[in-house]
Amino acid sequence: MVENNTIMHVNHSNLHEFIKNVFCKKGMSLEHAQICADVLTFADLRGIDSHGVARLSGYLRLIDAGRINVNPNFKFEHRKKTQIRLDADGSIGLVSAHFAMQECVKITHDYGTAFSGIYNSNHFGVAAHHAIQGFKYNYIGFAMTNASPLVVPANGIERMLGTNPICVAIPGKNGRSFILDMATSTAANGKLEIAQRNNKKIPEGWAIDSLGKSTTDAHILSEKGALLPLGSDREHGFHKGYGLSAWVDIFSAVLTGASWGPWAPPFVSFLQPKIDAPGKGLGHFVGCWDMDGFNDLNETQNQLDAWIDKFKSSMTSEGNEVLVPGEPEAIIMEERLKKGIPLNPEVSKDLLNISQALNVKL
Amino acid sequence: MVENNTIMHVNHSNLHEFIKNVFCKKGMSLEHAQICADVLTFADLRGIDSHGVARLSGYLRLIDAGRINVNPNFKFEHRKKTQIRLDADGSIGLVSAHFAMQECVKITHDYGTAFSGIYNSNHFGVAAHHAIQGFKYNYIGFAMTNASPLVVPANGIERMLGTNPICVAIPGKNGRSFILDMATSTAANGKLEIAQRNNKKIPEGWAIDSLGKSTTDAHILSEKGALLPLGSDREHGFHKGYGLSAWVDIFSAVLTGASWGPWAPPFVSFLQPKIDAPGKGLGHFVGCWDMDGFNDLNETQNQLDAWIDKFKSSMTSEGNEVLVPGEPEAIIMEERLKKGIPLNPEVSKDLLNISQALNVKL
Repeated sequence: MVENNTIMHVNHSNLHEFIKNVFCKKGMSLEHAQICADVLTFADLRGIDSHGVARLSGYLRLIDAGRINVNPNFKFEHRKKTQIRLDADGSIGLVSAHFAMQECVKITHDYGTAFSGIYNSNHFGVAAHHAIQGFKYNYIGFAMTNASPLVVPANGIERMLGTNPICVAIPGKNGRSFILDMATSTAANGKLEIAQRNNKKIPEGWAIDSLGKSTTDAHILSEKGALLPLGSDREHGFHKGYGLSAWVDIFSAVLTGASWGPWAPPFVSFLQPKIDAPGKGLGHFVGCWDMDGFNDLNETQNQLDAWIDKFKSSMTSEGNEVLVPGEPEAIIMEERLKKGIPLNPEVSKDLLNISQALNVKL
Repeated sequence: MVENNTIMHVNHSNLHEFIKNVFCKKGMSLEHAQICADVLTFADLRGIDSHGVARLSGYLRLIDAGRINVNPNFKFEHRKKTQIRLDADGSIGLVSAHFAMQECVKITHDYGTAFSGIYNSNHFGVAAHHAIQGFKYNYIGFAMTNASPLVVPANGIERMLGTNPICVAIPGKNGRSFILDMATSTAANGKLEIAQRNNKKIPEGWAIDSLGKSTTDAHILSEKGALLPLGSDREHGFHKGYGLSAWVDIFSAVLTGASWGPWAPPFVSFLQPKIDAPGKGLGHFVGCWDMDGFNDLNETQNQLDAWIDKFKSSMTSEGNEVLVPGEPEAIIMEERLKKGIPLNPEVSKDLLNISQALNVKL
């Protein structure tokens, strides 16, 4: 690691090696550890710091608590020609979602589409990494997961849903792709943490307190508050954000046999999963469509290229720029591939502790 | 029609008969006219008044202007086993999306999933009607369409996208289903029209003026303003609403060969489609997943039933209620099936004019 203005920078290959070795030390196979390292490093490279190596110590605590099984016995059930279900056997989701997507990619070769429900799983990391697995075959990817309950339904005051992301990844020409990967809450938990670190208030419309009142307190989640769904309030369409989040919960967990809604297992190891859960573990939903299946591939990718150009050159007020979903992350990735991945002091400390405890070189 | 407090009420069967006869008079086949009547009456019954019979005169003007072909020659292209493309030959979308979905339902019998892109089409009405076509087989439905440009991208001030809806319809037990059918803008155009009629201002966060400034002027769309994507502003995640709307535009038009973004043909007949369009007509994307394809159907529907109960009974602040997506519409439908469909005075006048001009009994 290189120190630079108190922020440590780490080369992505070194980080990848470190993560892989850490998971191996915890008893994971080299193949699975490699996939974990791929997914976490990808998140850090793309600037999704909340889903990168910052999560590593959390995963390790779940392994230590017996909540993540490092040697899962995956069971695929091919229920229809293009529909499969994966019992992840308590695996880390980084790996189970990856294998489910690989299976979907294989099926798509023959049928044009394929989708997999995954249950009995855990946190799957950044959705986009799963969704792009078919890019080399020009397959559009789709990935969703439910998550620990932090978000209220429209009109509700009880944490019933996770920040439940939706990811749609559409492969373009010359590396110019469309990658939408969004939480369905107005703000993700990570944004509140940033405000906490900077001792700042959060904007109205992000969260409510335990009585349902709007709040600007960045610490509200530790005081029984909750996040609001995208749209923030009735006037601004929060029933839509709620609807999207509910869709993700149903596809990821109700369809698959995972625990849904308020029963989705918490990410942190100090909170126990609720009893009487209606299903097993966390759930995911992934799949793909062949981009050549609706019109000639080359023509479609030319159109996508023109679409990107048209949107990027559309009018803005001064100083603003229209970006394509996934573009901000691609810009950060280019920079971080060259300059390394910046780690905030807390994360650096965390990694050094792990390095020492497991005797894995960082 | 029955007059009741200056609002006319019409029985849904009578309305259906009227719409069917009107389209037949315009040269449409009985089969197609029947489908049009199904879709529009369904919207009115469910309280989506902006997408029901209020649109009838608009469709007729597009027929008169030669922009809707009442005798289309549909051409299906089966490009992959589960992926098809439909050239709608200038049809009204109410009909083309219906046939595309029927074809998807057939394919789903054999493969578990199927999706269709549709191009060279027109306005397809309320998305939910297409999405529920596979309910009798317990297929989950999916429907999207692009639409006339009224919405800015995040950071933009130019109308580049329609209110591009996403619909996901999940069949439940005992008629308790999950039907999410949402525009991806904060507010749909119809809400501005209601404010205009009531001489009211609109809330901040719905629209901007031609310079990109926030506005409360309900007439702003006729003054070169534009609608904002869901999320309303940067702080509240409008890049997410933009991303969703862009996804719909790309699936509906870029993948299918329809005209995308600012070239999506306008609904109103007095505005001509722009020249140099990159594709043909409006585009839609529909499809389905067999609900039995991820876990046992009966178990999944029991879980969905429990999900609905759990969410409906979750905590709210006083006087509020958590509803399931599609539930408000189901409640209105129950009432309107009994009491008839209320028509506002402008719509009543419109229908009486049509009735007179075409000599079709209302």
